[in-house]
Amino acid sequence: MRIVIVGGVAAGMSAASRARRFNPDASIVVFERGEQISYGACGLPYVIGGEVESFDRLIARTPEQMRGRGIGVRLRHDVTGVDSGAATVTVTDRATGQSCTEPYDRLLIATGVSPVRPDWAVTPLGGVHVLRDIPDGEALDASVRGAKRACIVGGGYIGLELAEALRARGVSVALLEKGPEVAGRMLDPDYQRRVRAELERNGVDVRCGVTVQGLTGKGRVSGVQTDQGLVRADLVVVAVGVKPNVGLAKAAGARLGRTGAVAVNARQETTVQGVYSAGDNTESVHRVTRRRVHIPLGLTANRMGRIAGVNMAGGDARFPGVVGTGIFKAFDLGVARTGLTQADADTLGLNAVSVDVSSTDHAGYHRTSRPIHVRLTAEKGSGRLLGAQLIGENHLSVKRVDVVAALLGQRATAQDLFDADLAYAPPFSGVWDVLLVAADRLHKLV
Amino acid sequence: MRIVIVGGVAAGMSAASRARRFNPDASIVVFERGEQISYGACGLPYVIGGEVESFDRLIARTPEQMRGRGIGVRLRHDVTGVDSGAATVTVTDRATGQSCTEPYDRLLIATGVSPVRPDWAVTPLGGVHVLRDIPDGEALDASVRGAKRACIVGGGYIGLELAEALRARGVSVALLEKGPEVAGRMLDPDYQRRVRAELERNGVDVRCGVTVQGLTGKGRVSGVQTDQGLVRADLVVVAVGVKPNVGLAKAAGARLGRTGAVAVNARQETTVQGVYSAGDNTESVHRVTRRRVHIPLGLTANRMGRIAGVNMAGGDARFPGVVGTGIFKAFDLGVARTGLTQADADTLGLNAVSVDVSSTDHAGYHRTSRPIHVRLTAEKGSGRLLGAQLIGENHLSVKRVDVVAALLGQRATAQDLFDADLAYAPPFSGVWDVLLVAADRLHKLV
Repeated sequence: MRIVIVGGVAAGMSAASRARRFNPDASIVVFERGEQISYGACGLPYVIGGEVESFDRLIARTPEQMRGRGIGVRLRHDVTGVDSGAATVTVTDRATGQSCTEPYDRLLIATGVSPVRPDWAVTPLGGVHVLRDIPDGEALDASVRGAKRACIVGGGYIGLELAEALRARGVSVALLEKGPEVAGRMLDPDYQRRVRAELERNGVDVRCGVTVQGLTGKGRVSGVQTDQGLVRADLVVVAVGVKPNVGLAKAAGARLGRTGAVAVNARQETTVQGVYSAGDNTESVHRVTRRRVHIPLGLTANRMGRIAGVNMAGGDARFPGVVGTGIFKAFDLGVARTGLTQADADTLGLNAVSVDVSSTDHAGYHRTSRPIHVRLTAEKGSGRLLGAQLIGENHLSVKRVDVVAALLGQRATAQDLFDADLAYAPPFSGVWDVLLVAADRLHKLV
Repeated sequence: MRIVIVGGVAAGMSAASRARRFNPDASIVVFERGEQISYGACGLPYVIGGEVESFDRLIARTPEQMRGRGIGVRLRHDVTGVDSGAATVTVTDRATGQSCTEPYDRLLIATGVSPVRPDWAVTPLGGVHVLRDIPDGEALDASVRGAKRACIVGGGYIGLELAEALRARGVSVALLEKGPEVAGRMLDPDYQRRVRAELERNGVDVRCGVTVQGLTGKGRVSGVQTDQGLVRADLVVVAVGVKPNVGLAKAAGARLGRTGAVAVNARQETTVQGVYSAGDNTESVHRVTRRRVHIPLGLTANRMGRIAGVNMAGGDARFPGVVGTGIFKAFDLGVARTGLTQADADTLGLNAVSVDVSSTDHAGYHRTSRPIHVRLTAEKGSGRLLGAQLIGENHLSVKRVDVVAALLGQRATAQDLFDADLAYAPPFSGVWDVLLVAADRLHKLV
């Protein structure tokens, strides 16, 4: 049994480890086009901001460690072609330029995503960055030294996390967002505005509804040209989204889903015999809507990788799907969401209702208690929970989103949440946790 | 419709508010033997420790506010008798000593618990305290001023919380526990030891397996005599447990349960027509074991009170039961549990298995991440989750116990927990939240 894995980060390395554990006899080889495997890409903004000591700290396992477990790892190797009839891949050594053909019994495509680079961002100017892998991070980090004015283009997770990181480095930050608000795909408008207010309170110059037209500069970037004038900047980060790397899957003849990512079944099998797909390049099923979605996030990628690894090695594991949980920190704010926003539910034509509760994360009389805001959404008629959005001024307080995430997996109702015996002591929550307060109001409306 | 409520703290005032909302025409009167209503007793240790500014801050609502909502409140009134045949109670005004008879259509007994005072603790000596209500707190607070050496007797919630509070006040603290460890009823032995180690790290002289025999002193206490010698102390707090105040329920002819607390059905009805019971004096149903239990805690009391209020006012509400969730802070540690410990499960004859995971509360490479320990317990065969215990060095991190608490209410399995789409970003958790790591190990063992 020969298992070939393309991509050695979250999904790929999880799959390799799982396959090895499940089948000690399989030959397993991982081809990674980059310089590192098994790193925590989600930590990149925190190295830039100084919360993590160094990029090395993000590396969970080295190629040597993997080889010690009998997993072959070839760095700087591009898999440039696949012949699914012959069950071979074409691999090019980036150092030498030499290509060879490698056979497989099972192939995993874990090629991840690439940052979207609009035409204006394809430039020889220095000081223009994306942030996806460790070399990106190192380049950005070098660029930050000596930079005075950063312009972040894009108000999603990465843009928001980098705004905090760059402010921590003493750089002035303008954040440009094409849409009407930051965090637009994650939150309902009221919650988007709370995030923007926190950015502004921390000195970020947030400009929404702005379209970038080009860059200015000689050698190094000096500004971002927009439909609303020039934004001066000696550092530009392009964080306008990601696209799944589906070239290899297409070459194998695997079907893509409507989302543009690779379509798979619950076993992570593509439509091509023996070819699996896992990680950010792959669709998943949303357990609330039962629709196929493309929400590339770290836990999902790791989970898919493990499922693929077990199945490639001869086992039978099923990916349970996601409920659309996401969380980020923006300065002092914690921001979390799970399931559907009211806007999501409206778009899907669901008969949904939301309640908003503003309270404190723990007993209001306690010295360290801080404001927290919760929007909870359920389906009218059935009472089924659809989603939650949380913003807390003590960032850790929004991790309670997990309670709703877990209940969404059970297709539980607002009443079920209200009946939950949540933990109470004054340093932890109010006697009625804010989630219970929200559930109490909501279950009367559904 | 005349609703009479005995006891004006958590359950009683919740019931009064709910009954008023449900039935605007009912006459509602609350008799409270103390000086205040509607206060957060759980906050008392935090006033002593200085985390809450004053005892007044614990008062959620005043009698005036309640009267403004058409709820009669009579402070310093003891309900000393009940004639359930005639549907009357005998009420004594503690100020004047005068008694009268009051009729009711619905009677709620929300008399709470009293601290257990062993014989040795019944003493005229000054400096000997229990902590249950605001006057207790004020007396203790006054006694702390000038005290040098405190001796806390009892290693449960209150004893542990007060150890921290008194150390914060600069008092040396010895904590005596009769059992083999502190937190004995809440946690399995390994977790008990972690709590003790934290107390000791913070200078608390913890002595377990010690039986108190008496007190020494003249005028003011000077020491605690034990089977292992004298412990010098100018301040003694007796925190050896609570007993339900069931005198009135017995007088009404209501049945007590095996736990010694008042037996009720899911509507909070006692065995006597028209007589309800709610709060710390009342049994509840444990949703994991389906047995009747007596676990007096703030959220449960409030919840029971609301249920009783609705039902007394003519509605139909049901108490869902508890899952045995508890949480406390001991210096920097957060400690939480829900469901059953392995010891609980063994006692009940369940075929249970536990796993222990020690990890970090958020990404290990992140500067602010701190150790967290999780024990997760499930039933063999069914895989059903039975309980969780958490200890975290960042106290807020253990609030994730709520995820398990919510799933216990759904009778979910370890696999269900493992499949939960929990939130991940480096400042909040590892990519595999410690609960997922534990669930992954556990579901393979069940």
